[in-house]
Amino acid sequence: MPVSEAQQQEIEQLRDASVPTLRATVPALEDMLYRALPVLDQGFIRVIDYMGDDAAVVQAARVSYGRGTRMVSEDRGLLRYLMRHRHTTPFEMCEIKFHVKLPVFVARQWIRHRTASVNEYSARYSILNREFYIPAPDQLSAQSQDNRQGRGAVLQGDEAIRVLDILREDAARNYADYQEMLNEDDEGNVIDPNRQGLARELARMNLPLNIYTEWYWKCNLHNLLHFLSLRADPHAQYEIRVYAEAMMQALRAWVPLTAEAFEDYRMGSVHLSAAGLDVVKRLLAGEDVTVKDSGLAPREWRELMASLGRAG
Amino acid sequence: MPVSEAQQQEIEQLRDASVPTLRATVPALEDMLYRALPVLDQGFIRVIDYMGDDAAVVQAARVSYGRGTRMVSEDRGLLRYLMRHRHTTPFEMCEIKFHVKLPVFVARQWIRHRTASVNEYSARYSILNREFYIPAPDQLSAQSQDNRQGRGAVLQGDEAIRVLDILREDAARNYADYQEMLNEDDEGNVIDPNRQGLARELARMNLPLNIYTEWYWKCNLHNLLHFLSLRADPHAQYEIRVYAEAMMQALRAWVPLTAEAFEDYRMGSVHLSAAGLDVVKRLLAGEDVTVKDSGLAPREWRELMASLGRAG
Amino acid sequence: MPVSEAQQQEIEQLRDASVPTLRATVPALEDMLYRALPVLDQGFIRVIDYMGDDAAVVQAARVSYGRGTRMVSEDRGLLRYLMRHRHTTPFEMCEIKFHVKLPVFVARQWIRHRTASVNEYSARYSILNREFYIPAPDQLSAQSQDNRQGRGAVLQGDEAIRVLDILREDAARNYADYQEMLNEDDEGNVIDPNRQGLARELARMNLPLNIYTEWYWKCNLHNLLHFLSLRADPHAQYEIRVYAEAMMQALRAWVPLTAEAFEDYRMGSVHLSAAGLDVVKRLLAGEDVTVKDSGLAPREWRELMASLGRAG
Amino acid sequence: MPVSEAQQQEIEQLRDASVPTLRATVPALEDMLYRALPVLDQGFIRVIDYMGDDAAVVQAARVSYGRGTRMVSEDRGLLRYLMRHRHTTPFEMCEIKFHVKLPVFVARQWIRHRTASVNEYSARYSILNREFYIPAPDQLSAQSQDNRQGRGAVLQGDEAIRVLDILREDAARNYADYQEMLNEDDEGNVIDPNRQGLARELARMNLPLNIYTEWYWKCNLHNLLHFLSLRADPHAQYEIRVYAEAMMQALRAWVPLTAEAFEDYRMGSVHLSAAGLDVVKRLLAGEDVTVKDSGLAPREWRELMASLGRAG
Repeated sequence: MPVSEAQQQEIEQLRDASVPTLRATVPALEDMLYRALPVLDQGFIRVIDYMGDDAAVVQAARVSYGRGTRMVSEDRGLLRYLMRHRHTTPFEMCEIKFHVKLPVFVARQWIRHRTASVNEYSARYSILNREFYIPAPDQLSAQSQDNRQGRGAVLQGDEAIRVLDILREDAARNYADYQEMLNEDDEGNVIDPNRQGLARELARMNLPLNIYTEWYWKCNLHNLLHFLSLRADPHAQYEIRVYAEAMMQALRAWVPLTAEAFEDYRMGSVHLSAAGLDVVKRLLAGEDVTVKDSGLAPREWRELMASLGRAG
Repeated sequence: MPVSEAQQQEIEQLRDASVPTLRATVPALEDMLYRALPVLDQGFIRVIDYMGDDAAVVQAARVSYGRGTRMVSEDRGLLRYLMRHRHTTPFEMCEIKFHVKLPVFVARQWIRHRTASVNEYSARYSILNREFYIPAPDQLSAQSQDNRQGRGAVLQGDEAIRVLDILREDAARNYADYQEMLNEDDEGNVIDPNRQGLARELARMNLPLNIYTEWYWKCNLHNLLHFLSLRADPHAQYEIRVYAEAMMQALRAWVPLTAEAFEDYRMGSVHLSAAGLDVVKRLLAGEDVTVKDSGLAPREWRELMASLGRAG
Repeated sequence: MPVSEAQQQEIEQLRDASVPTLRATVPALEDMLYRALPVLDQGFIRVIDYMGDDAAVVQAARVSYGRGTRMVSEDRGLLRYLMRHRHTTPFEMCEIKFHVKLPVFVARQWIRHRTASVNEYSARYSILNREFYIPAPDQLSAQSQDNRQGRGAVLQGDEAIRVLDILREDAARNYADYQEMLNEDDEGNVIDPNRQGLARELARMNLPLNIYTEWYWKCNLHNLLHFLSLRADPHAQYEIRVYAEAMMQALRAWVPLTAEAFEDYRMGSVHLSAAGLDVVKRLLAGEDVTVKDSGLAPREWRELMASLGRAG
Repeated sequence: MPVSEAQQQEIEQLRDASVPTLRATVPALEDMLYRALPVLDQGFIRVIDYMGDDAAVVQAARVSYGRGTRMVSEDRGLLRYLMRHRHTTPFEMCEIKFHVKLPVFVARQWIRHRTASVNEYSARYSILNREFYIPAPDQLSAQSQDNRQGRGAVLQGDEAIRVLDILREDAARNYADYQEMLNEDDEGNVIDPNRQGLARELARMNLPLNIYTEWYWKCNLHNLLHFLSLRADPHAQYEIRVYAEAMMQALRAWVPLTAEAFEDYRMGSVHLSAAGLDVVKRLLAGEDVTVKDSGLAPREWRELMASLGRAG
């Protein structure tokens, strides 16, 4: 269960304490504030705080004085122009903070984005909970045969059952051994008074990479979009993509015009090289271009034809 | 005049539009929001937005769930511990955005802090106003004789008058020449219909470094404290220090416990090297230490004695 | 003159002092090392140091052990793949350091790239030289009529002469006044023993933005490519673009395969949105698409048609 | 064994290929280049490349032209001044690249330093080796009783034996299960042709945090010193500290004057708050200060007395 009953009560308390502010405020994101969006079997994201809105991006682009009085249609046009032409600094003027619960192997991918602020639950100080990610059966994919970094068909029958058994049993045993090394049981009591218990910073090394951790993760809107463009992408590993997709929901509530422009111009967009553009122009002029006279390497040619929806 | 009447009206309008929020909110900073704190002769800082409060730092340090229920005295102790031991990541969880009007030569120092987001008024697109920093008479300091990077006594009599005359006359003439090159007068009208007018991106190169510019500047609390530790310091040039001091007012309103810990542990603190600490220990033991047997270079010895308030 | 005779001698001395190294070394860049490439009327860039080569990027991508043994053709293919798919971290493994002399208004644009290390000549400590950028006559462009951030036709006749006169005279006078305020002449002698001289950190504010400054500027290959993609672009202001173009020469000498891939896939490439791609597909299918049924805003339609080389 | 025989041969080949360069070169670091310094039971660090030397820091501080001609004694004084007064930007002018083999739980601490460039071995693409960190018996410490983040006495007798057995057995079983899920044996052969094998990106989640990984890690000298000040510190966990200590050897070979200044002024230095400095001054004046009239909280008082080597 991602969120305990006590946590749920605390969330409700926080949601009862409305106060007045003069800051830019977004009612649709206020509706989501503090609430957990479940992700994977035991994870979640929660929006804890935010700063700015679509208008703050516009204001920074105009370096206008005050929050501005232009009509929304003009703001939308400006935001789309900024997104299309990759004018990124105005998007840095908004900030968002998430509370995330996620498996350690996902955290290891995630942390490679260096432009965020992070405070993670410390397994040097504290004891991790017995919570492990076990994939749903429809996510138990085989290794892809043609892409070293991808998934193939879903495992079936005995092989699937065996994998789930291994993951569950190894997690259970490694966690039990973690507790034995710590000499501490589920209630925090000493197991054997004649033993000292291994230091937490050492015992943790026995835990497998599917154990859950938690962190606060805060970044600006520009860096969030960069994260989402990589992690909400079909090439991202499923287990991080579902977090990115939950964050997309928060994005749409928070900055709807920016989110729309982002989905139109960056998600699903393609990049044409000068040589690729030349091929497109020749095709449009009715020429019958082949890989041989295209000036492209075979791999680039295949990528280009695929993005144009043509047989290579 | 730092703020025009129209701008003042806009500020008052923004200050009338209170809305409810569930976010962490700081009434003392809300009182300052949007208002201009005057700095130098024509500059200002204004707080435009903020995110988080002292409790947000504490929460990140505890990676607790929810905003926490501990008493303030414990929060204060934890914040002071974090500051004393330079545990900096929890302070990254708060964010603040300023609107600043400042001379270009000050902006050139300021921008060296690379960990902030900036959107500046563009002199490629737009025409700068006729606003120049002219120092107050008590800031017209001579070059220091013993510190290549410092100020000496204040200039007096004819020399002071002459400097002010130069600064005013050169600013006026260069600005008039800027307009002539642009072929555009104060009202934005073409001066001479037979001329084309030089491109703005070129004409601006004639403006002296004391002309005012404006920007939005946003950073997290950790980076703000780093900025303030360098720029609110007596070694900083007066013209940037007064901005840092105005930001200190905002800091105290925003995160009073963090500000207190910052002033106690970082402003006015000293750093003792291992060798310097050894000298202090020997002095405390009643030994009569001299520069010769101190193990310190003469310059370090003088610096240490000065910080201990002793004759070298 | 960009480089004095004494500086030229020092460069030759540095170029005579070859030593052995086991590091990755690029003869073509060694040929350029320390030498000044002139830029604008009095500026330059010089490559002072570098680390890594094309193979270092490949090695990081493979996280192979040692420098690898694959054939160059494979390295080239991998580099092009990384560039095409924006896999950027391997390019961070190379580093380059430049010494640059440039006008202050160019330095103000340049410094907005925050991911580099910079050490600039200090006008708080030291006195700036009497060196100002005066545009060549063919760069004296009028303000563009249809682009607020661009240049139009070159100024002619009296208007051009008048602009050059203004720039030269204001620079000369402001510099003379700078010296008078400092109370110091060209040889560093006191002008009037009865005056104190204004502090350097104050006197500099009278200098116009076309005065030259110098800095060391160091960044990794990934950030350099990002800088070049923005600043070697036709939309960049001419005065910074010529620096970027000189740096492109160094790039081609240093990492020829990376430079080739960069020019093929990033310079002159275009970005198609999902909706823009849809238009291209419909056009390729022989459909007669108009702005009205394209799903694009008029501005986007014009941009797309322009990049496809078609009448809008 | 940290380095295989094949790897050792490759290192020797690289070390045989000396070429001439005009760049700043440090013979003492050339001696270490490519060679593995063993760390922990199976880890290492290797210096793969570097840029700059002590003189490059001095040059940046002086923004002098060319590599400079001052005597070493002056360079040393300037470097010590920069270190003492935390003038950090000149240290950014040098760069170093390491190849590191380290356990994943150490990598998780290490990666929190965001100012470096990293390329890590990918367990999405590739299969990790069967190499796990097993602590030496004298590092099997109990949890500290008075410091939640520290180690106490070393475990003895049966408890120590039991911990080592658990770590070895769980590592062996989890790795065997990893291979079974992958359906691939040590030689890379399919185990069971009737099974598909789980995707690598999923199977890795079963591996415990003491498995070894590898990366290239590159940063500038300023950020390296910051890393070392935190990680070569006695408060750092032993398993990361030993890496920092090996990097200190490289630091001393590379930039001996900077390393000396770093060890004198940052390692083993203490920070005195304004209030703490006041206590020291009163003690030096012969006053008998107690915690009560010190103005310090009890915890700060204890920390101050400890650093002065006095009974609290």
